[in-house]
Amino acid sequence: MKAFHYTEVPQEGFEGLEGVSIRWVMGDNVQTPNFITRVIDLAPGANTPYHQHPWEHEAFVLDGNGTVRTPEGERDISERTCIYVPPNEEHQFLNTGDETLRFICIIPRVEQDV
Amino acid sequence: MKAFHYTEVPQEGFEGLEGVSIRWVMGDNVQTPNFITRVIDLAPGANTPYHQHPWEHEAFVLDGNGTVRTPEGERDISERTCIYVPPNEEHQFLNTGDETLRFICIIPRVEQDV
Repeated sequence: MKAFHYTEVPQEGFEGLEGVSIRWVMGDNVQTPNFITRVIDLAPGANTPYHQHPWEHEAFVLDGNGTVRTPEGERDISERTCIYVPPNEEHQFLNTGDETLRFICIIPRVEQDV
Repeated sequence: MKAFHYTEVPQEGFEGLEGVSIRWVMGDNVQTPNFITRVIDLAPGANTPYHQHPWEHEAFVLDGNGTVRTPEGERDISERTCIYVPPNEEHQFLNTGDETLRFICIIPRVEQDV
């Protein structure tokens, strides 16, 4: 068993993405076999790209307020909202509040991207 | 995309386990393909069984204080502690505080148990 505060895992930026950072809190560091848990921070006004990929997201908001945009429309999210994005669905997370939007985002092991 | 507050998913008890409840927040309800996200509540003084199984846990504490016990020893956990329990390791979560110990606990899709 490994136990550690999530802030012990270094925060990484994304090239060309202003105000977006990620901590790979349970993945290669503890050799998870099947899925990877990340904590993603969006600064006020920041957003992830509107993009798609063949793997799903299971996300859970820790702090802040924002919006998730998909072809189905937009949904407001806030503390303790669960968000499920199925494989291949275009999606974008936007921070619409005035504090950090922070959420857990879990992906299957085979893929390692936003 | 599905987005909903985690409390919209009904809380279920465990037969014979006092003070332990679970919400299967992203699983069959949204047809996740690879892994399942649950939110587990332990009342003050409650604990999960000391047990093992062939699948891993990736856990993240939302509220409260407690201890995780494994054959390697005990670790105190509190808000935003990450806990990785590898497959087949005996483990137990105990609420040692005076409020609910609440944590996210993710398991691979093939297995659906504590």
